[in-house]
Amino acid sequence: MDEFELIATLTAGLPRPDFVRVGLGDDAAVVEVSAPQVVACTDMVVEGRHFRRAWSSAEDIGHRVAAANLADIVAMGAMPRALLVSIAIPAETETGWAADLIDGIQAEAEIVGAAVVGGDTNSTEGPIVVCATALGDLQGRSAIQRGGARPGDQVALVGRQGWAAAGLTVLSRGFRSPRLLVEALRRPEVPYEAGIRAAESGATAMIDVSDGLLADLGHIATASGVAIDLHTDLLPVDEPLRDTAIAFTMDPLKWVLTGGEDHSLAATFPADAQLPEGFRRIGVVTSGEPTVTVDGAEQRGARGWVHFGP
Amino acid sequence: MDEFELIATLTAGLPRPDFVRVGLGDDAAVVEVSAPQVVACTDMVVEGRHFRRAWSSAEDIGHRVAAANLADIVAMGAMPRALLVSIAIPAETETGWAADLIDGIQAEAEIVGAAVVGGDTNSTEGPIVVCATALGDLQGRSAIQRGGARPGDQVALVGRQGWAAAGLTVLSRGFRSPRLLVEALRRPEVPYEAGIRAAESGATAMIDVSDGLLADLGHIATASGVAIDLHTDLLPVDEPLRDTAIAFTMDPLKWVLTGGEDHSLAATFPADAQLPEGFRRIGVVTSGEPTVTVDGAEQRGARGWVHFGP
Repeated sequence: MDEFELIATLTAGLPRPDFVRVGLGDDAAVVEVSAPQVVACTDMVVEGRHFRRAWSSAEDIGHRVAAANLADIVAMGAMPRALLVSIAIPAETETGWAADLIDGIQAEAEIVGAAVVGGDTNSTEGPIVVCATALGDLQGRSAIQRGGARPGDQVALVGRQGWAAAGLTVLSRGFRSPRLLVEALRRPEVPYEAGIRAAESGATAMIDVSDGLLADLGHIATASGVAIDLHTDLLPVDEPLRDTAIAFTMDPLKWVLTGGEDHSLAATFPADAQLPEGFRRIGVVTSGEPTVTVDGAEQRGARGWVHFGP
Repeated sequence: MDEFELIATLTAGLPRPDFVRVGLGDDAAVVEVSAPQVVACTDMVVEGRHFRRAWSSAEDIGHRVAAANLADIVAMGAMPRALLVSIAIPAETETGWAADLIDGIQAEAEIVGAAVVGGDTNSTEGPIVVCATALGDLQGRSAIQRGGARPGDQVALVGRQGWAAAGLTVLSRGFRSPRLLVEALRRPEVPYEAGIRAAESGATAMIDVSDGLLADLGHIATASGVAIDLHTDLLPVDEPLRDTAIAFTMDPLKWVLTGGEDHSLAATFPADAQLPEGFRRIGVVTSGEPTVTVDGAEQRGARGWVHFGP
């Protein structure tokens, strides 16, 4: 199958919503937005580094790549509209693999009504690499940036946090259950709607938790020039985390504080704001050096996932 | 150097034009356009497949990746505004390599006033992979699609055509000159301004020649449901191509017809239109089965570059 045939196979039957004025099959796509600005981000995953084919199906990987990008768009307070997807894949990979990957990407995009509008396929002698770019529409809202948190703000979180990290621990130790945690690693459940609600409800800052809760709140602290203190008793340690931590004699808070693959959303809101549905308060913004503390104490060596480096 | 430090190093000092409302350093970028629609495309290059570090500097590769994307935006009649760049790079690569790559990308973007607004860096055990996505602004114009060519239209070309392919032949045979051709392979000179002029002058279809002149005109023929006939005596066989072809006892038309790395622009214009500056007529659109002929004869086995497959 040559490049043109592969592209034709991959893109056959992909839906094209009305806001996609020019879709796949031209030099570039044309996407309508509701105001003259567009939100854009990109995220790449590398086999062996971000996923293993033994642990995840192509469809799972598609879900994850799409989710990582769509969550970043929502974390700006924007509605995701379009995805562009480039793949480097060894020539000997089964034909169905790339098609399943695109199916997973499309299925995840559909959750928020976004469409795949462009892409590029390439052969490689190395690991599979998938790169996606997402485009979003602010729909008249202001972008929620990292730098807007103010002393006194509430810090709040929505979505599963630490589940994927716990799932990775489970798989790394050779287990295949609890299934819920392993599944959480394979396919994140991103709280897309809650992110849009946060933007509508006056969030002062928001971030997609992809590097770990401490690390990503650290980005907000740095960008906003504030300190953040989390309260242990407010942090969500969900039941599957508690149970598995007991079985492994681990502290489940490690997953909650440093896990980054769930794509939960952390946001700050004014002190008197009612938190939008789904969000729970986990701490407070204070004035001071940009740090993230837990119960007032600094957390060293737990900055979360760092994808680059040794 | 960890991911955060590398990103900080790569992005330090990158310019941020006014239309970039939110640039690097947040979950996503916010880019202003002059109408509520955005043009977007993506293109990925893989070491060993699209470039070799022995043949091209990191800066050259940056120029090429950026040019491939920017040319696609211009081929829609849009002004490029922003680039997002993701890299997979082995941990042992010299630190300067990625910085030089970004320098090359930034320098190419600057030619059209575009800015790097987002990115992602990852380590890999495999070949270097660079993926860029470009965003463009139609500035009130209609998108020029592949499907707009009509029987009777003139077929026209702007930019170097076949130079990069000739440069590849030169390098593949172990030579390092003619320097002009080798340089053309390393850094394309994309006729960006001419592409915008074509859109302003009523081009009916346009395409970035990246798969080869015959292959890409074939895309226009198929999308438009027309036939295209090129005239040998109108095709540009530039002097360095002629001279090198003589030295290698080759037919320089092969480079012109199948070369795809120059990112020249092919477009169709109404029969009575005056071609915009820089464009030269190379053939005519006729009614009939979607084919591309040269002097009325079909060209078999010369469809140009196909990046995927054996």
